[in-house]
Amino acid sequence: MTSTNPEPASRFLRACAGLPVDATPVWFMRQAGRYMPEYRRIREKFSLLEIVERPEIAAEVTLQPVQALGVDAAILFADILLPIIPMGLKLEFAKGEGPLIHNPIHGIGDVNRLRRLDSRTELGHVMETIHLLRGELPAEVPLIGFAGAPFTLACYMIEGSGSRDYRHAKSLMLSQPKTWQALMEKISEALVDYLLAQIDAGAQAVQLFDSWVGALSPADYVTYVQPYSSLVLQTVAKTGVPVIHFGTGTTSLLEHMQAAGGTVIGLDWRVPLDDARRRLGWNQPVQGNLDPVDLFTPLPVLQQRVEDVLHRAGGQPGHIFNLGHGILQHTPVENVRAIVELVHEKSAELRESV
Amino acid sequence: MTSTNPEPASRFLRACAGLPVDATPVWFMRQAGRYMPEYRRIREKFSLLEIVERPEIAAEVTLQPVQALGVDAAILFADILLPIIPMGLKLEFAKGEGPLIHNPIHGIGDVNRLRRLDSRTELGHVMETIHLLRGELPAEVPLIGFAGAPFTLACYMIEGSGSRDYRHAKSLMLSQPKTWQALMEKISEALVDYLLAQIDAGAQAVQLFDSWVGALSPADYVTYVQPYSSLVLQTVAKTGVPVIHFGTGTTSLLEHMQAAGGTVIGLDWRVPLDDARRRLGWNQPVQGNLDPVDLFTPLPVLQQRVEDVLHRAGGQPGHIFNLGHGILQHTPVENVRAIVELVHEKSAELRESV
Repeated sequence: MTSTNPEPASRFLRACAGLPVDATPVWFMRQAGRYMPEYRRIREKFSLLEIVERPEIAAEVTLQPVQALGVDAAILFADILLPIIPMGLKLEFAKGEGPLIHNPIHGIGDVNRLRRLDSRTELGHVMETIHLLRGELPAEVPLIGFAGAPFTLACYMIEGSGSRDYRHAKSLMLSQPKTWQALMEKISEALVDYLLAQIDAGAQAVQLFDSWVGALSPADYVTYVQPYSSLVLQTVAKTGVPVIHFGTGTTSLLEHMQAAGGTVIGLDWRVPLDDARRRLGWNQPVQGNLDPVDLFTPLPVLQQRVEDVLHRAGGQPGHIFNLGHGILQHTPVENVRAIVELVHEKSAELRESV
Repeated sequence: MTSTNPEPASRFLRACAGLPVDATPVWFMRQAGRYMPEYRRIREKFSLLEIVERPEIAAEVTLQPVQALGVDAAILFADILLPIIPMGLKLEFAKGEGPLIHNPIHGIGDVNRLRRLDSRTELGHVMETIHLLRGELPAEVPLIGFAGAPFTLACYMIEGSGSRDYRHAKSLMLSQPKTWQALMEKISEALVDYLLAQIDAGAQAVQLFDSWVGALSPADYVTYVQPYSSLVLQTVAKTGVPVIHFGTGTTSLLEHMQAAGGTVIGLDWRVPLDDARRRLGWNQPVQGNLDPVDLFTPLPVLQQRVEDVLHRAGGQPGHIFNLGHGILQHTPVENVRAIVELVHEKSAELRESV
């Protein structure tokens, strides 16, 4: 494990460190995806899991948006559910149905049967993809690794699929607290192993996706989730590599997520960026938070929405431009490209005027 | 239109008015539903729309939870989408799929074709159900009428079904603001007509359900939604009948929803009740906010969760106990009944100790 430079050169890593930048860095969650014709061509030949298992293809897909859009960071092409396969869960990506787990967690017996993850061997293809990417990416475009956060992964493992209400996961959490604790400990241990392996392989930042955490009350977050997210975030942060802590629907949870850890806090559009920066302190780097639906509006509207986010960021260091959630299918590619140009251009103007 | 008594006698109406009560009133969103065996028996014979069109059956279903649970209010059995049928939308409740609209709104032409609602004739069966219920309900159990809020109805009308991201609705809102305005005006006018008709027929309170409003940023809520919700809420409030203004995922929106109107603000579990009461002011009556998933936990856990809500309500007048969203399918009936007893018993104790 190596420490990052004290003064990183790239816009993205400088913003993670709260350092001044020439223009606000921008990348997009799910920037490699079905909205891109070059991605769809690959997906005609390979399933999602087949892409991930072939490092050359996974690297190619990761590079597609870097080449097409001019973003300031690449994000590893993978899926948050990859680590649960070697842990013993039978995962299938059913066509049009999303992920499906055939042996979801019901009780302590299932938790006890979970295997300890050895990411370097069992997810060696992911590490190989990272290795390849570091050889191919330009120096000014850092590579972001990622993982799902303990709560979001636990929800998948218990529900066995997507869910509207997380009924099984939340009722196990409340009704079988020892089982929940054992599960969250095993997941956290696996995530530390997985993220450290990604960093060793060359990831220059990592993002922890707690996409479903907004389903919880603050009190439940603090009791049942924060200790495990904290363990993962704090352990990984010791490497010196920046960690982005992201969730959606988190207006009630922001301070608790910040307390759990993360070099950067990822925000969705439900909380105004200026409110969030005031609440978290202006020295807390943040990432976000354009509504992904804004990319379906005509350019003059989109431009106004992008500028609004930049204005709310206050022209202060420590802002990484992103959406508040992943790019949606059917998003017009030209609008994604337009955002990159707009963010670079307008943020540079804003900086001069501050 | 008649004004309510200056000093209502029932717990529910007293709490709506912020008056002291002997015990906190409690009712549940979707308290008549599939989790009840007596409801399932009716649903074996009739579809949802068939029940609604038969006032005797709709009244019977409305009364089921009052008899089985001892709740402090009845809520009319109906569906928020009823008014859009006479407005010209072809609505189907597809088995296991939820509502489906075969001619969703795409542009101004579709909005112009919407018909003006005459609730008294076109939804006369709803008014007849209310009339029957007022004859059957005991005096201490008021009847709540309801409607979907303009934003949530507009989303359904544009999306044509449920949605994860409200992409079509939100992009129409941003890209075709005049079309959005025309649609929201037509919906608001229909809602005023519908709610006033319910009140004339005998509804003693009404709830406006903005179930999907949590998908919006505060700025978009203020620009595109608040004026229309406000028109409906303020017009209906002139009758003197209490209006409950409810939404989910509204932590960022609470003050704006309060500014729009509502005698009572309905809260979900994502915002702690004490935080919400501090933000809205202790003289603002509120309703909520147990997580519906809590009803799947064992009684000692459930009891602790119910008491937590009561403690956060602060033993102060102006709290109506409810869930933060509708009762989920498969909820154990005995747990719903237990909550009613617990709320009455514990809130009376808490009041004595304040």
